[in-house]
Amino acid sequence: MTQHETSTAAIDPGTWHEGRVGLWLIGARGSIGTVVSVGLHAMLAELAPPTGCTTASEAFAGVPLPAFADLVVGGHDVSTTPLRQRAHELVESGMLAHRFVATADDALARTDAEIRPGYDPTTHLGSQADAVRRMAADITAFREGHGLTHVVVIDISSTEPILEDHVEFHDADLLTAALEDPDRALLPPSSIAALAAIESDSAYACFTPSAGLGLPTLRALATERGIPYAGQDGKTGETLLRTALAPMFMARSMRVLSWAGTNILGGGDGATLADPEAVRSKLATKTRGLVSLVGDHVVAPLHIDNVPDLGDVKTAWDHIHAEGFLSSRITTQTIWSAYDSMLAAPLILDIARLLALAAADGQRGVVPEFGFFFKDPWGSDVHDFSQQTVALRDWAHATGARVHAAAQTAVTPA
Amino acid sequence: MTQHETSTAAIDPGTWHEGRVGLWLIGARGSIGTVVSVGLHAMLAELAPPTGCTTASEAFAGVPLPAFADLVVGGHDVSTTPLRQRAHELVESGMLAHRFVATADDALARTDAEIRPGYDPTTHLGSQADAVRRMAADITAFREGHGLTHVVVIDISSTEPILEDHVEFHDADLLTAALEDPDRALLPPSSIAALAAIESDSAYACFTPSAGLGLPTLRALATERGIPYAGQDGKTGETLLRTALAPMFMARSMRVLSWAGTNILGGGDGATLADPEAVRSKLATKTRGLVSLVGDHVVAPLHIDNVPDLGDVKTAWDHIHAEGFLSSRITTQTIWSAYDSMLAAPLILDIARLLALAAADGQRGVVPEFGFFFKDPWGSDVHDFSQQTVALRDWAHATGARVHAAAQTAVTPA
Amino acid sequence: MTQHETSTAAIDPGTWHEGRVGLWLIGARGSIGTVVSVGLHAMLAELAPPTGCTTASEAFAGVPLPAFADLVVGGHDVSTTPLRQRAHELVESGMLAHRFVATADDALARTDAEIRPGYDPTTHLGSQADAVRRMAADITAFREGHGLTHVVVIDISSTEPILEDHVEFHDADLLTAALEDPDRALLPPSSIAALAAIESDSAYACFTPSAGLGLPTLRALATERGIPYAGQDGKTGETLLRTALAPMFMARSMRVLSWAGTNILGGGDGATLADPEAVRSKLATKTRGLVSLVGDHVVAPLHIDNVPDLGDVKTAWDHIHAEGFLSSRITTQTIWSAYDSMLAAPLILDIARLLALAAADGQRGVVPEFGFFFKDPWGSDVHDFSQQTVALRDWAHATGARVHAAAQTAVTPA
Amino acid sequence: MTQHETSTAAIDPGTWHEGRVGLWLIGARGSIGTVVSVGLHAMLAELAPPTGCTTASEAFAGVPLPAFADLVVGGHDVSTTPLRQRAHELVESGMLAHRFVATADDALARTDAEIRPGYDPTTHLGSQADAVRRMAADITAFREGHGLTHVVVIDISSTEPILEDHVEFHDADLLTAALEDPDRALLPPSSIAALAAIESDSAYACFTPSAGLGLPTLRALATERGIPYAGQDGKTGETLLRTALAPMFMARSMRVLSWAGTNILGGGDGATLADPEAVRSKLATKTRGLVSLVGDHVVAPLHIDNVPDLGDVKTAWDHIHAEGFLSSRITTQTIWSAYDSMLAAPLILDIARLLALAAADGQRGVVPEFGFFFKDPWGSDVHDFSQQTVALRDWAHATGARVHAAAQTAVTPA
Ligand SMILES: NC(=O)c1ccc[n+]([C@@H]2O[C@H](COP(=O)([O-])OP(=O)(O)OC[C@H]3O[C@@H](n4cnc5c(N)ncnc54)[C@H](O)[C@@H]3O)[C@@H](O)[C@H]2O)c1
Ligand SMILES: NC(=O)c1ccc[n+]([C@@H]2O[C@H](COP(=O)([O-])OP(=O)(O)OC[C@H]3O[C@@H](n4cnc5c(N)ncnc54)[C@H](O)[C@@H]3O)[C@@H](O)[C@H]2O)c1
Ligand SMILES: NC(=O)c1ccc[n+]([C@@H]2O[C@H](COP(=O)([O-])OP(=O)(O)OC[C@H]3O[C@@H](n4cnc5c(N)ncnc54)[C@H](O)[C@@H]3O)[C@@H](O)[C@H]2O)c1
Ligand SMILES: NC(=O)c1ccc[n+]([C@@H]2O[C@H](COP(=O)([O-])OP(=O)(O)OC[C@H]3O[C@@H](n4cnc5c(N)ncnc54)[C@H](O)[C@@H]3O)[C@@H](O)[C@H]2O)c1
Ligand code: NA
Ligand code: NA
Repeated sequence: MTQHETSTAAIDPGTWHEGRVGLWLIGARGSIGTVVSVGLHAMLAELAPPTGCTTASEAFAGVPLPAFADLVVGGHDVSTTPLRQRAHELVESGMLAHRFVATADDALARTDAEIRPGYDPTTHLGSQADAVRRMAADITAFREGHGLTHVVVIDISSTEPILEDHVEFHDADLLTAALEDPDRALLPPSSIAALAAIESDSAYACFTPSAGLGLPTLRALATERGIPYAGQDGKTGETLLRTALAPMFMARSMRVLSWAGTNILGGGDGATLADPEAVRSKLATKTRGLVSLVGDHVVAPLHIDNVPDLGDVKTAWDHIHAEGFLSSRITTQTIWSAYDSMLAAPLILDIARLLALAAADGQRGVVPEFGFFFKDPWGSDVHDFSQQTVALRDWAHATGARVHAAAQTAVTPA
Repeated sequence: MTQHETSTAAIDPGTWHEGRVGLWLIGARGSIGTVVSVGLHAMLAELAPPTGCTTASEAFAGVPLPAFADLVVGGHDVSTTPLRQRAHELVESGMLAHRFVATADDALARTDAEIRPGYDPTTHLGSQADAVRRMAADITAFREGHGLTHVVVIDISSTEPILEDHVEFHDADLLTAALEDPDRALLPPSSIAALAAIESDSAYACFTPSAGLGLPTLRALATERGIPYAGQDGKTGETLLRTALAPMFMARSMRVLSWAGTNILGGGDGATLADPEAVRSKLATKTRGLVSLVGDHVVAPLHIDNVPDLGDVKTAWDHIHAEGFLSSRITTQTIWSAYDSMLAAPLILDIARLLALAAADGQRGVVPEFGFFFKDPWGSDVHDFSQQTVALRDWAHATGARVHAAAQTAVTPA
Repeated sequence: MTQHETSTAAIDPGTWHEGRVGLWLIGARGSIGTVVSVGLHAMLAELAPPTGCTTASEAFAGVPLPAFADLVVGGHDVSTTPLRQRAHELVESGMLAHRFVATADDALARTDAEIRPGYDPTTHLGSQADAVRRMAADITAFREGHGLTHVVVIDISSTEPILEDHVEFHDADLLTAALEDPDRALLPPSSIAALAAIESDSAYACFTPSAGLGLPTLRALATERGIPYAGQDGKTGETLLRTALAPMFMARSMRVLSWAGTNILGGGDGATLADPEAVRSKLATKTRGLVSLVGDHVVAPLHIDNVPDLGDVKTAWDHIHAEGFLSSRITTQTIWSAYDSMLAAPLILDIARLLALAAADGQRGVVPEFGFFFKDPWGSDVHDFSQQTVALRDWAHATGARVHAAAQTAVTPA
Repeated sequence: MTQHETSTAAIDPGTWHEGRVGLWLIGARGSIGTVVSVGLHAMLAELAPPTGCTTASEAFAGVPLPAFADLVVGGHDVSTTPLRQRAHELVESGMLAHRFVATADDALARTDAEIRPGYDPTTHLGSQADAVRRMAADITAFREGHGLTHVVVIDISSTEPILEDHVEFHDADLLTAALEDPDRALLPPSSIAALAAIESDSAYACFTPSAGLGLPTLRALATERGIPYAGQDGKTGETLLRTALAPMFMARSMRVLSWAGTNILGGGDGATLADPEAVRSKLATKTRGLVSLVGDHVVAPLHIDNVPDLGDVKTAWDHIHAEGFLSSRITTQTIWSAYDSMLAAPLILDIARLLALAAADGQRGVVPEFGFFFKDPWGSDVHDFSQQTVALRDWAHATGARVHAAAQTAVTPA
């Protein structure tokens, strides 16, 4: 294509002109990571349509996003179990259909070759700053090796216990000193990974309730360095349902008095959340949105139980008591049942595509419109899922239009 | 602005300057009608806040709507059971708390005195046009007797069987002829009532799935005569839930494969719907919105069963099967349980207030933004409840601003 | 009646010949106690049939049990709120229908006059033995004042925290010494009440999970003194359902892998169980039966949440995962919703009638066949509800036959 | 006893001494038939334990029943789709785990070779008596070919429409004449199959709601010919749950006012039941037991909907409204979800083993104790599942003891 052939007509507003995009997963060998890799293979092999991918819907038509074929996956993990094996285990457990995994061996091996050891505080030698540098170097090598225009780092590693506050989280200099001290291990692994994203100039998203990039000094640093980022804690099941449903009661001026919930699940996430410390961070993010939507008078007991025999299926029962006209009682119960990681994986692909767009647009700092994807949206107080849907679509079209216009300018001779 | 300053201050944008408003209920002695009357009493006596009234929420602050105290209730009914007695029956059945009814005797007696005999095809003598004239005269007398600026007619009478199409429904002259023929009874009672609303220059809403004003010639006539109207079939329970929930699946690009539902209820509505003909019209309006939201591939068996021992509580179970990423199965079940008429009554008050506003603004014909209230919105294809919520609020504020501006102009000396 | 009128024919095997029976309730002014008193009034006034009373069913026809009219209620409580007021509060909350309470004032006042102050460890002066003597004297005075043949003491007072073991619970002499020591308060109130029952020669049942008569030395003493007793913790809702359902899975050789449960409730019991210590004893008794029925491999997380806005309605959701043929998955969910005290009250009447029968038969010590009524049956490992049903019926008929035969012998001249 | 001591020792009361047993399935290539064949293979290959087989539980220890290895499967079907293909389809649909089918090809091929064409009224030439003779000959050839001591015929073919009554069903001579008339096709296929069972001296069970052996003349004939038989309509899901639960309400003297139910399923059975005629027979058998357990005042609307996307999973929602003490409301909801054929298959194996035992004992005519397996038990009015459980166990042990004693006698020299 010569420069002259390029014209306004030639540039479809929905076409991505920014080259290949790296998707760097912290926890790449976990359940979600495995489904992401199998799913990319299945879609490229035309075994499966992009059902569950928000960005593949009509509402995003015309937005210039990287195609699924433009994504290259790599990541960090502390596990060494190969993706291929994880994938077959997920077939055994009933989560993945055999037909998607049957032909995926080569693709999974290729991705596995791009996975580097994650930061493991129990074995790491040297300062935390060393760890950040090593991991940033891994990402940079990945970017350069594949000639990627953008890399998006997404944290899907195991949920960490709630982090206590420290003075270093509020003071950049103190933090720097602490990180260089080989005798201290101040930051949790998720924040080490977030720093590596910043250091390597990657966009970043936090899909877990762990600290990640959520500390004040880190957020300031990310904005300063000009990376776009979003979080926190993927909204996939019970909380998704809640934020779709709660506004209905409010729109009808009902008073939600209580919203009790119980989640039961097995699998890796079930085992992690059996730890009462880990579950505390999860429970906190889950309740925040509800209170914001219906008011802080709401009584909202919430449980997550590890029930190993259920495997990766998560079932959630919610009991909602609302008061209507003349104090009358409305009770609504919801029962949600699904493979949690199957809900999460397409969102990871959505986030990667959309953060690449944000990066192409040169956005810096938190992107509040990504609240659509998260239980505890950074940079936003909006929890109403339909409002989030509108906000994300509007953002994508406006950003896409700018990126498109810029591309057009770039290729159009003066 | 000098003396004008007073007037600006005097006109609160949220204040209604149009005098008292008549609320004329077709089926005024039914379950919903009784709750409307008891509720108005309870709110005026400060025994109950307007919980469940959409127009009483923050989102409508500043919109000039008639106060509850501005509403005067009358109506038509074929039943002669006094409101007082119905109210006490509803206490007995557990629907209404005794405290709201205890002091309502006088208020209910006053309303009862404003209820005129409805059109009963089995006993009516003369042409249907005579019936329309008699009923329009009832409404006009009510308007004049109370010095009302606006009257809003709302049909909350028993659901009628599905109506077969007739050539007269499409040709005004043929319809007129048929109505004057004393030997024909072409129109169902709900349409006779709608004509009476038109004849008496009242705004009109159809809260039932019956034909009402929904026939082409009648709708044309209403628009021509300049009355604002809205419909159809109040959206209060299972369908409300569905239209709040279905968009969530779509926003996440899931494919809803089936949505099965069962409703069980007793009470008057249960008995009516035990008639397989009556239930057909209800089932039709209930399914329409779902198909429009998730696609017509959806398998959506739906049942309504009369279970007399349940009384006025309606319980609905829905089972939703959606397909997500890599064909994975998501099942969601909802169980909704509430006193149906307690959900409906506050909406009747909302519709009355908002149609009075439309009338004050001189709106003519269908008001599509009232889709918020209805299973099968007239003049609109929007079923998504959050979109309807935004549309109604926007409409109310825009209309209110115009009415306010007009009121201001009116009081401002030239 | 002269001796001659007495004949075999004259003695209906189902007729009670033992005079009036005292029903002494520990916690008589609580929710259950109030329903018991209102219910007795309603049945005697023929406002209500004995629905919910097991002993009033066909299966117990022919068993000589005291009639409801033979029961005289008294009790201990630490609350001074009159029954009348409690009853009206229960009407307000929707639990009791107004019609049952409307005419009950006199009856409730009469019962109130029979209620004596319970043992309150925070205010009691003197030794615990003093407390036992005072309470036993209250019961004896009640028996004598009303000329009662038998008194049945039933503990329906607030659930106590789990009790730690003490050496005195296993050694009668040590216990006696501890009780006489005015500086010690070794036993919980429920055990003080149980001792008062023993001291006053009353039959005894423990409807709560508290210690009550459940301590080894107390049980030995009860048997030695010859009183019949039964326990523990009324089986009314979720646990009833579980013990009816679990045997079904076993009969079909399915393997129950997990049985997760959540209870939500408000009211007095909800508030008590909000205390994590109190709830522990409840959770323990609830799980015991399940494990015994399906095996100790079962994963059975269980929660009880205090949700005040729900009032006295308790709702329980259970999720059961069983494995069937070729490892196939069977999931069963149950949702139970009812006023807890309305389930309990008729059982109190049943227990009173049946323990009076046991006393008439001269039974001493634990009566294992009462397991039908309890979550954690004393003297029995049978939790299967249908087996318990058969056992109780058989026991009642066999005991009734003996009591009948003895009565016949007594009145028949040699 | 001298040499006899050996024989006593040699005859374990739980050992079967009657040789191999034929299991002849009408509808052998259907979903249940396929699972039966795969399951037998899996158990013999020690890939799976007999979970779900009642007769494999402790409660049947000591009863001399044929081992699974003693069963030889054959049958009739009108479908020609090989078992192997059906089995792989059931893997694809998620019902069967791949590991059970992976090594089953040979075993399934062997069984397939024993399946003969079923009676197809649309293609059959000749009289119905010819069809009976041909099918009886198939069974006899099977018996002789494999040297089987007993053959048990079980009908698991597609549910037929409700059969209208005919005079021939009550008069053996008229029936014989009708069957020999080549121009009449009086009996449905299920009854032709039942006659073939009688003609071939096989025991018989009807697992469907179709007529089968249920016609008066056929039942008389079966008894006369001395075959043991049982029916009707396998009790596997919602009805099983109902008959386990309903007695609980009765034992506690509650009054069950309504029991509403909805079933949704896809798969072969879903498609068959989409036919309103076929579903009528199913609905009839499902409701009969409920009415018998809780009284005929119960309001019990029941639906079965074909929802193809659900595949072979059947989900049933039941809503039970019971009245308790002082008219209080108890609501219980149950949601049952399972692969229907996986529930049925082990029962087919149980019935085969137990009917072989009945035959070994020389029982003639209906065996009422098999009610345990059926929605609409022949020869019995007992629907209470726990009563049925006890009855079946007692029957098995008593019958087993007789069979054992006879075997012992047989081997003991005079
Ligand atoms: N629907 C959802 O699945 C959902 C929704 C919201 C949030 N999340 C969160 O996503 C995360 C992943 O979920 P999952 O089901 O895939 O869990 P998983 O346990 O299967 O995978 C977690 C992976 O993280 C790896 N890991 C642990 N520590 C690490 C470290 N220091 N560095 C790099 N990798 C590390 C583990 O080895 C593992 O491979 C969890 O935190 C979960 O709470 C999931
Ligand atoms: N949540 C809800 O309650 C809800 C939602 C949507 C629609 N609706 C519809 O609202 C209507 C009213 O419900 P309801 O529960 O009050 O029913 P209801 O049976 O208690 O009351 C209906 C009233 O209409 C009267 N009526 C019947 N024919 C009449 C006629 N020809 N003219 C005048 N009056 C007549 C009856 O006498 C009765 O008083 C029904 O059509 C129902 O389907 C209700
Ligand atoms: N279905 C059921 O309701 C059910 C089932 C099983 C067990 N129980 C148990 O029954 C008990 C009563 O339940 P409720 O709902 O009536 O509770 P409640 O709180 O309404 O009543 C408890 C009563 O006990 C009294 N009390 C407290 N301490 C006492 C003392 N030391 N001596 C005498 N009285 C004392 C209180 O004042 C109160 O009146 C609870 O322990 C509960 O756990 C109830
Ligand atoms: N839990 C359960 O699955 C359950 C419970 C109770 C009853 N049943 C009944 O069991 C039967 C079988 O269920 P399924 O799921 O295996 O159904 P299916 O449709 O998979 O199988 C039925 C089989 O019967 C065959 N068939 C049809 N007409 C025949 C004829 N005239 N002669 C011989 N074979 C014939 C069909 O070809 C098919 O192979 C149905 O009637 C069903 O209602 C099943
Ligand atoms: Na419309
Ligand atoms: Na029968």
